Amino acid sequence: MFGFSSLLSRHSNRPSQRHFVHKLFSSTPQPLELPLSYPTYLIWGSNTAVGKTLVSAGLAASFLLSSPTKFLYLKPIQTGFPSDSDSRFVFSKLSALFRRRNPSITLHASNHVLNASGSAVNDVFKSKENGKCEMGMYDLGWFEEQTQVGEGTTVNSELICKTMYAWREAVSPHLAAESESGVLEDSAVLSLLQSCLRSVLDGDMRKERSEVLCVIETAGGVASPGPSGSLQCDLYRPFRIPAILVGDGQLGGISGTISAYESLKLRGYDVVAVVFEDHGLVNEVPIMSYMRNKVPVLVLPSVPKDLSNDLMEWFDDSHDLFNTLKELLLSAHLERLNRLHDMPKNAGDIFWWPFTQHKLVPEGSITVIDSRCGENFAVFKNNEVIAPLFDACASWWTQGPDATLQTELARDMGYAAARFGHVMFPENVYEPALECAELLLEGVGKGWASRTYFSDNGSTAIEIALKMAFRKYCFDHGLLKDSTTKTSPQLMVLALKGSYHGDTLGAMEAQAPSSYTGFLQQPWYTGRGLFLDPPTVFMCNGVWSLSFPQGLHKLKKITFASRNEIFSKSRDKSEVAMMYSSYISEQLSASRGFGHIGALIMEPVIQAAGGMHMADPLFQNILVKECQSRKIPVIFDEVFTGFWRLGTETAVELIHSVPDIACYGKLMTGGIIPLAATLATNSVFDSFIGDSKLKALLHGHSYSAHAMGCTAAAKSIKWFKDPSTNPNITSEGRLLRELWDEKLVHQISSHPAVQRVVTLGTLCALELRADGCNAGYGSLYARSLLQNLREDGIYMRPLGNVIYLMCGPCTSPDTCRQLLTKLYLRLEEFNEERN
Amino acid sequence: MFGFSSLLSRHSNRPSQRHFVHKLFSSTPQPLELPLSYPTYLIWGSNTAVGKTLVSAGLAASFLLSSPTKFLYLKPIQTGFPSDSDSRFVFSKLSALFRRRNPSITLHASNHVLNASGSAVNDVFKSKENGKCEMGMYDLGWFEEQTQVGEGTTVNSELICKTMYAWREAVSPHLAAESESGVLEDSAVLSLLQSCLRSVLDGDMRKERSEVLCVIETAGGVASPGPSGSLQCDLYRPFRIPAILVGDGQLGGISGTISAYESLKLRGYDVVAVVFEDHGLVNEVPIMSYMRNKVPVLVLPSVPKDLSNDLMEWFDDSHDLFNTLKELLLSAHLERLNRLHDMPKNAGDIFWWPFTQHKLVPEGSITVIDSRCGENFAVFKNNEVIAPLFDACASWWTQGPDATLQTELARDMGYAAARFGHVMFPENVYEPALECAELLLEGVGKGWASRTYFSDNGSTAIEIALKMAFRKYCFDHGLLKDSTTKTSPQLMVLALKGSYHGDTLGAMEAQAPSSYTGFLQQPWYTGRGLFLDPPTVFMCNGVWSLSFPQGLHKLKKITFASRNEIFSKSRDKSEVAMMYSSYISEQLSASRGFGHIGALIMEPVIQAAGGMHMADPLFQNILVKECQSRKIPVIFDEVFTGFWRLGTETAVELIHSVPDIACYGKLMTGGIIPLAATLATNSVFDSFIGDSKLKALLHGHSYSAHAMGCTAAAKSIKWFKDPSTNPNITSEGRLLRELWDEKLVHQISSHPAVQRVVTLGTLCALELRADGCNAGYGSLYARSLLQNLREDGIYMRPLGNVIYLMCGPCTSPDTCRQLLTKLYLRLEEFNEERN
Repeated sequence: MFGFSSLLSRHSNRPSQRHFVHKLFSSTPQPLELPLSYPTYLIWGSNTAVGKTLVSAGLAASFLLSSPTKFLYLKPIQTGFPSDSDSRFVFSKLSALFRRRNPSITLHASNHVLNASGSAVNDVFKSKENGKCEMGMYDLGWFEEQTQVGEGTTVNSELICKTMYAWREAVSPHLAAESESGVLEDSAVLSLLQSCLRSVLDGDMRKERSEVLCVIETAGGVASPGPSGSLQCDLYRPFRIPAILVGDGQLGGISGTISAYESLKLRGYDVVAVVFEDHGLVNEVPIMSYMRNKVPVLVLPSVPKDLSNDLMEWFDDSHDLFNTLKELLLSAHLERLNRLHDMPKNAGDIFWWPFTQHKLVPEGSITVIDSRCGENFAVFKNNEVIAPLFDACASWWTQGPDATLQTELARDMGYAAARFGHVMFPENVYEPALECAELLLEGVGKGWASRTYFSDNGSTAIEIALKMAFRKYCFDHGLLKDSTTKTSPQLMVLALKGSYHGDTLGAMEAQAPSSYTGFLQQPWYTGRGLFLDPPTVFMCNGVWSLSFPQGLHKLKKITFASRNEIFSKSRDKSEVAMMYSSYISEQLSASRGFGHIGALIMEPVIQAAGGMHMADPLFQNILVKECQSRKIPVIFDEVFTGFWRLGTETAVELIHSVPDIACYGKLMTGGIIPLAATLATNSVFDSFIGDSKLKALLHGHSYSAHAMGCTAAAKSIKWFKDPSTNPNITSEGRLLRELWDEKLVHQISSHPAVQRVVTLGTLCALELRADGCNAGYGSLYARSLLQNLREDGIYMRPLGNVIYLMCGPCTSPDTCRQLLTKLYLRLEEFNEERN
Repeated sequence: MFGFSSLLSRHSNRPSQRHFVHKLFSSTPQPLELPLSYPTYLIWGSNTAVGKTLVSAGLAASFLLSSPTKFLYLKPIQTGFPSDSDSRFVFSKLSALFRRRNPSITLHASNHVLNASGSAVNDVFKSKENGKCEMGMYDLGWFEEQTQVGEGTTVNSELICKTMYAWREAVSPHLAAESESGVLEDSAVLSLLQSCLRSVLDGDMRKERSEVLCVIETAGGVASPGPSGSLQCDLYRPFRIPAILVGDGQLGGISGTISAYESLKLRGYDVVAVVFEDHGLVNEVPIMSYMRNKVPVLVLPSVPKDLSNDLMEWFDDSHDLFNTLKELLLSAHLERLNRLHDMPKNAGDIFWWPFTQHKLVPEGSITVIDSRCGENFAVFKNNEVIAPLFDACASWWTQGPDATLQTELARDMGYAAARFGHVMFPENVYEPALECAELLLEGVGKGWASRTYFSDNGSTAIEIALKMAFRKYCFDHGLLKDSTTKTSPQLMVLALKGSYHGDTLGAMEAQAPSSYTGFLQQPWYTGRGLFLDPPTVFMCNGVWSLSFPQGLHKLKKITFASRNEIFSKSRDKSEVAMMYSSYISEQLSASRGFGHIGALIMEPVIQAAGGMHMADPLFQNILVKECQSRKIPVIFDEVFTGFWRLGTETAVELIHSVPDIACYGKLMTGGIIPLAATLATNSVFDSFIGDSKLKALLHGHSYSAHAMGCTAAAKSIKWFKDPSTNPNITSEGRLLRELWDEKLVHQISSHPAVQRVVTLGTLCALELRADGCNAGYGSLYARSLLQNLREDGIYMRPLGNVIYLMCGPCTSPDTCRQLLTKLYLRLEEFNEERN
């Protein structure tokens, strides 16, 4: 009824060594795609020796021996090799089960061991002294296979077992690697894992996709270190493969199983089933109760303790259970696929996206984001793969975390929610709010700010700032005493054209008329300000130049030898400075009679939403001086510019002058959760002190200073500025190193398709040469360019014909260089299409 | 040099049985105070049998044998008794170590076993058939003590060991309890634990507080079930005692230790040190790396495997390490105390609280919130205790979670942050945003809403709603075509006096002038609306009555037989209904000429910030009808009223009419994180569809639809309405059961100090009789009353002379009854003081 083919065992003559370099900081993972065309599961253990391999083998048997299918078993990390080999165990148990169950199909089974450490290789080949491999990792290429013919005559089921990396010592992989091979980079493991997963569809015996199943067995427990020292739950995270947790049925096993489950959830894994061996303690009852029946819990029969037992009877007894598990895995995969497939339609039907003309978003262009890992989205692509996409818009400029910080923040978010949830702020104090306020005042507010006012987003922070500034102005100018007179004084702001301070009405009133403020958008907008056109700076053809607006045309063209020169304090005494000063004075004088200018508000250095324009910092510096000399309170809108966005913790350092009030948001929490803060001097604060509550600042939002936001902010503020966690911090600790390759930036600024470039800190912006309806916020000019960049794994969002790359404060210059290179190549293409 | 006192062993003649009732839902924990006057630590194990008791004994030795001190060792849960007894182990090891080390002090040591199951009692007394205890928990009162005299002559160190509850079988406590005693409630364990902790300071040998140390040893692993089935990490959570984690030095122990640590963090515990036995695997290296050196990791010498070893040498070898650990514990406690002590001053120095006149907040009145557990804050009180305080202001009306939901949300927050962090929303879709939008449309938006627009808080949700409504109005009334004319149409809202829709300018413009809107607060406020005074309903002397504003005086006094009658549909045809209708028509006609009424905006049923007034729902129903018949879009501001606040999932059900747009926030996320949503009909959405992006709704905040917020909302929306998680849901699933005791509410409404009462859903509000400057928002009239209630464990915040109790949708009526009773008693006192 069935027969054996010959058992092959082959290997290369001499394994080739690879060298691995110890990494100081986790490098950006290379684009890693996970095929979803067949189900893949990661098998985790709540501890070592809880039976992960038995579960793998049982699943393989249930899958392979009932119908023609293909099963891929991967063991990325094996220690104790060659005496221990889980892939060999699965290979041999399946062969034995085939013989025992005698199915009506034919099985081709193979077992590969791809790479092994020197010691392991020596053990395999029983190498003598002079033929011994040294420390390192070698291409072992061990291979064995057999075909067992069932009733059918053709080979129609296939088992592929692969060990990716093996070490000799039966210890934790990080110790084995340290002593036998040197560190093995996480990216190497992931990249080999990816090729193994891809190759399954390439074989001769290509199966219908519904007939392939893959399990990847981890080593030890969920948080056991991998060969680089990274915990395995972190190592595999970029793929976020759904998990099967093999729990523990012994005394203490309830706790171990639940904790392991929680560690997986804290990395964003979905656990599809929990399975464990019965030890007669009914551990499933409390575990199921903990799971609230949301995750199936399956109990395997007790495994015979006798080591000589071949387990055939045990596999028979477990047959139904593994069938159930297999069905669970198949249906969970199908459900996931269906949901992913339906999401764009559902989204288009019920979402109302901000800043989006729904008519211009066809279903096919909707991006399905399955997860994020550090700077990368993981998106569902072409209906069959999960692929990374670099978030180059930093998700509306909020993002900062690398993958490590994201995991740390996730744990901290769980902690803060568990410890505090949200608690009432006024008249109360709790640790995260206090620590966050302290860090803000020692950091971005250093040298001027004394008080922290919390709110939810940049726009609310601005409204609060305006209320503060106006009160202070009225206080200083004796306008509060006049409150008995019938007509209140008219207050307005001094602001810059092209600035954007938020979407709520109060914030909008403080900005010049624009696409955002018309009657169609905001019927109540009037624009209560004196709005000046600022001189701007940008790079063109490799040279930084200054461009003057109308009314400031008196000087010849000014260029700078370097970007540093733009920010140099020596410009304070220049002719331009004097011109700025008298221009501003004139404008302020001319505005008298229209009302009181009660506040200066501006985005320091970069006007972001207005099109990533760099205002001349000298002009802004002089504006501040002119206003402060007139006792007009100064507000810096640092919602975009704060927390290293521009290469310094605060743009205050770039402007060389301090505000009275400043607003923070976006990156403040590392980009994980909304929170905003308005900082102010004590003298602003004092103008609200009095005997009546009605004199207090009566503005606050439900979640003021919520514990999770403050916890995230405290963590991120410290993380970004600490050279031990942020490799980009220069030794002086005040500056990010240059992230954008100078040469490439020059090249791009000289490109014919490019009008101007601005790079500073984490920002690299460029305006595409365009005119007519191709220019401006409503333009769709950049669409095809950005579509192509998406194919390259870069997600950008345009501001009309202005596009930009934005990274986090910890992103490596290497990654930035790759982004620039891809952008340059696509610009070439874009230009050709247009000529 | 030293001698023994006689060893005592005493017990009551017959242990007394207690009965325990199985609980269906976790009841509100009784007020439980944790003394902070001496350090107390919980000792957790990453698994069972990792050496928690050895660590306890080692610490006791290090603490007791060097100077005159008092050490309290508590073992709340002991199984396997009497053959296993950890308290006896500590007691006997300390006695042996005393003899060995021969210190210059005298030690009095005792070991108590307070309660034991019937089987354990039988085993202790070797009871025969007819004298046997039955199933149940008995007061065992086992006691042994000895005094060992050192060089000194007086007793000057004391070891108190106590086992609180013991069971016979050596299995998980929940199994032992099930078979031997019946379930033991968590509250019973906590309450006994509290008395044990308190009693340590009451003894004859009272020590200076700096000389007392207490450790509480848990049973099994961190997530092992306690006797009720609750996981121990959940069971002990209300005290949030700092933790020592005994990790695992074996193979697989890195993973187990890290996962156990994460489970503790996910419950809000602070882990002060990790300590484990050396097994030669250098597990401390990866564990320290994981901890980023923030938590000390200590390694104990290997424990002899020979069971007959008395461990004396091991204790000698561990001496230094335990000294280090002891110092860590003492200094961590001191640091915590100092920080808690300094927090009020620091807060007063750097916070700027919203809605707070800082001059009226002396340092002594600042509340230090150490954590929250379900509905209770845990506050630092009198500089020496952590005590619960019921959050009866629901932290600005946001709160909903009980302790179980809080833990679930914490895990979900960790998961969402790990899986998504925050990702860009427009043109994208990801699971939490989609699920949340689906649940909103199926829930609060059911029957009318088709689109979900996300933002950050109620105020932004309102500004978005106004933009939607105005566009829709202009679209329907042909005003968009006129955009070429120079003057834009003047748009205003129809709104109710006393309403409050948020603090940003746009939201403020839609509300009538009030304390919040004056020039002092918001110089840009003009009040763009027609503001009507609504008729209101309230209870006085046990009777619900309707009160008409000026202009609606035509009818005699109307009362209702019950609250249900107020909401009855039959009122639609009443005389009052007709009067309302014509009044509204008149007002709308009279407003012509001032501009277009482009939206109706109102808080359905309860006007919250305005003073917890209940508007007559019939009046609001007719307002909606009148507006919709004139094609004026209707906005419901459900930020306060949504999600069961008023006893139904949405107040739409109470008003019997649907809006075109509605705003949600606060309780939407269960009260854990800021998120808001504006729902709208498809017909509103369609008025933004066009060929240009400039026609789209250009309003959005950085964290639009952030994953954590949407995850929390999805979880909470489901949790609140599911009878299996919310015991207050009535069988029909549409209503909360009555939470406020009817008799008590009647009594309060008849109290001479009380003007009116409004109870509905989770709200019980009352206005104190007051006049002159004692009435109104700025009033401090209620201050002393609320101060006294704080002594009773209730945290309330006044709205001037209006005070209220607010619970969550899952709070038990029992808890509410306790709150009402305390309030009533304090009202009596308040009234007496005033007469």
